[in-house]
Amino acid sequence: MDLVQSRTPRDLGAVRSWDASDPLRAFRDRFDLPPNVVYLDGNSLGALPRATRQRIAHVVTAEWGAGLIRSWNECDWIHAPRRVGDKIAGLIGAEPGEVIVADSTSVNLFKLVNAALAARPGRREVLSEPGNFPTDLYVLDGALREQPQRRLRLEPASQLIDCINDDTALVVLTQVHYKTAAMHDMRAITERAHEKGALVLWDLSHSAGALHVDLNGCNADLAVGCGYKYLNGGPGAPAFLFVARRHQASLLSPLSGWMGHARPFDFVDSYAPAPGIERFLCGTPPILGLLSLECGVDLLLEAGTAALQDKSQRLCQLFIALVQDMCDSNELSLLSSPDSRQRGSHLAYAHPNGYAVMRALIDRGVIGDFRAPDTLRFGFAPLYTRYEDVWRAVEALRDVLRTQCWSEPRYAVRAAVT
Amino acid sequence: MDLVQSRTPRDLGAVRSWDASDPLRAFRDRFDLPPNVVYLDGNSLGALPRATRQRIAHVVTAEWGAGLIRSWNECDWIHAPRRVGDKIAGLIGAEPGEVIVADSTSVNLFKLVNAALAARPGRREVLSEPGNFPTDLYVLDGALREQPQRRLRLEPASQLIDCINDDTALVVLTQVHYKTAAMHDMRAITERAHEKGALVLWDLSHSAGALHVDLNGCNADLAVGCGYKYLNGGPGAPAFLFVARRHQASLLSPLSGWMGHARPFDFVDSYAPAPGIERFLCGTPPILGLLSLECGVDLLLEAGTAALQDKSQRLCQLFIALVQDMCDSNELSLLSSPDSRQRGSHLAYAHPNGYAVMRALIDRGVIGDFRAPDTLRFGFAPLYTRYEDVWRAVEALRDVLRTQCWSEPRYAVRAAVT
Repeated sequence: MDLVQSRTPRDLGAVRSWDASDPLRAFRDRFDLPPNVVYLDGNSLGALPRATRQRIAHVVTAEWGAGLIRSWNECDWIHAPRRVGDKIAGLIGAEPGEVIVADSTSVNLFKLVNAALAARPGRREVLSEPGNFPTDLYVLDGALREQPQRRLRLEPASQLIDCINDDTALVVLTQVHYKTAAMHDMRAITERAHEKGALVLWDLSHSAGALHVDLNGCNADLAVGCGYKYLNGGPGAPAFLFVARRHQASLLSPLSGWMGHARPFDFVDSYAPAPGIERFLCGTPPILGLLSLECGVDLLLEAGTAALQDKSQRLCQLFIALVQDMCDSNELSLLSSPDSRQRGSHLAYAHPNGYAVMRALIDRGVIGDFRAPDTLRFGFAPLYTRYEDVWRAVEALRDVLRTQCWSEPRYAVRAAVT
Repeated sequence: MDLVQSRTPRDLGAVRSWDASDPLRAFRDRFDLPPNVVYLDGNSLGALPRATRQRIAHVVTAEWGAGLIRSWNECDWIHAPRRVGDKIAGLIGAEPGEVIVADSTSVNLFKLVNAALAARPGRREVLSEPGNFPTDLYVLDGALREQPQRRLRLEPASQLIDCINDDTALVVLTQVHYKTAAMHDMRAITERAHEKGALVLWDLSHSAGALHVDLNGCNADLAVGCGYKYLNGGPGAPAFLFVARRHQASLLSPLSGWMGHARPFDFVDSYAPAPGIERFLCGTPPILGLLSLECGVDLLLEAGTAALQDKSQRLCQLFIALVQDMCDSNELSLLSSPDSRQRGSHLAYAHPNGYAVMRALIDRGVIGDFRAPDTLRFGFAPLYTRYEDVWRAVEALRDVLRTQCWSEPRYAVRAAVT
């Protein structure tokens, strides 16, 4: 039990007083959220900032429609990957010139896994954990397919740090687990890896934009992250990647497309990588998604990561406390850590009828998501989630658990995009 | 000289009568083009369809803003890569299930180059031509970096077919050259490659949407192409890739992201590729760019590739004939083939002051582009370019060539995105 827990409000009036004194209160009105919905899935697809609606309309009509090809220069589309990357750097403890926006999280993982392995040629092991977000493991599978001398070693999170050894080339971990929200100790793992001569690649998809991430404070090597979750870039927004400045000159992307060339508009036949972070670009940047992402990132920067993390922790603690108070089901169990220092900004609960429970919640306007076989997941995007939303969600959960007849099959699976 | 040439109109009235009887005439009004501009750069960034403006506003406001995470299922975002791919198949002579929209052209090149090389393990040569679009050569550089037993062999277009031999693993060519518009004989090169046991990968970036491309008619193996040129998908729109059905089961993408998994929402640790073309997906699809692309593709399908190619050839022939008639500069020379059967939908002219000429044309509202050191490039997107636009452009070119004082340095370079 921490400080937040001990002062948690237990009635709607007290909850509303938290909203009234919330320093991030005003950000709610800068998002377009549908009425009568409590949206607890911003960890999967972030909500729409009002500024984005106007910006995209302008980009389509004025920049593309009227400006046409001229907008690459006149609207500075060409530097948008670096400009938005520099902004994201401010959310993850990096410096300008260490982050760039490009491609998807999966493609960026592939670039950095390959670059890192080429930099550790004699080492045979790549270390990750079972149950890591699947695309991280799948990309490793693809990257190691043509390297039979190497193997992917999966070790449980609790033992992982002790498995880093002199044969470890690279450790690939998601800082906050996509399902349970369990958080790795970035500082300790990075330090141990460096002692052993290994590199670490962090996937920040479930932490950037919700927590205070401190890449350079932890002496991190490499990172990737998602643009459409807490960064609110819109569906399928481009992702970002981080390469610490000390590594940039020695690492090469296998995806050596023209936008990563030192002089892309010279149109010469031979490849020469750009000197800085731009060498990790590949093809032409996706302008609509990129400029949409910029609007989301601007709002987060205005809020600041300290305030975001503080509110994230309070939202989660309130949800935990209210579920304890209001939901008397003994079939519902918290899978996430109750300690906010060891957790990201979402909560996972197991329930044997998890799928039906989540369907019933969605029918009542409380949108979380379900992960097979039995996990309810509730995300708390600190920029637009109110404490009163948490109260409404737990009320709905209480009612569903009390009244639901489980007519649907247990352990059903629903398609969704995390 | 072909049939079109012999009947080319030589005055504005005759040119307007071509517009009046143009079967694609009505498509012009379905694009938002700025007034007083003649846009001859649709081969670099296609114009904005009016439907796209409305569609994107709806996607942002209703599908993302109000629908939130539910739209992956309820608006069928999840199947958009395949749905739009099936539509593009109708433009390039492929079948539904052979094309998918994903990532950028460069990333798709990387996937298919690696997949093809893995399928031809004993062969040492990858064949292309010098001066191919740079990203094609750069991606080959990256793909071959870790394969020291293999080499990239560049041979001039005219000799290339005779260089395919028993040691050729893969031929990588852009069907229509980005600069000169020179067109390879897809059928003959594919046939020779198959005789020798090699695969061919076609880059359709400068042909799809403007010409009648017939992949299956040529027995093609693999192809990629761009979404933001003649397909009018908007700046940085996602690209597409084609894998002939006979190859799909045996080829694997090195970029084995979760969207290419057979069951992406099972969230299992081990990778299993999807059975069909979906195995070439990687990360989460870029919804804004993808649905924007769909609007552009829908218009092209409505027009039909035969009508598009016919008008493309007429536009180019008219431009060539009018330049001959109206521009008396002996410093201007046609780099493209005068024979429309050996050429794509743009024309390249050399002029020693090419940069200054193009700047002056753009100042007069005629937008083409410049490629160092001396090339003027004019693209003729058949869906929205009028014959009268060609007349206006040549008038402007005539005036520029007559009156311009060349104060700017020769051979200057301007950044632009092809």
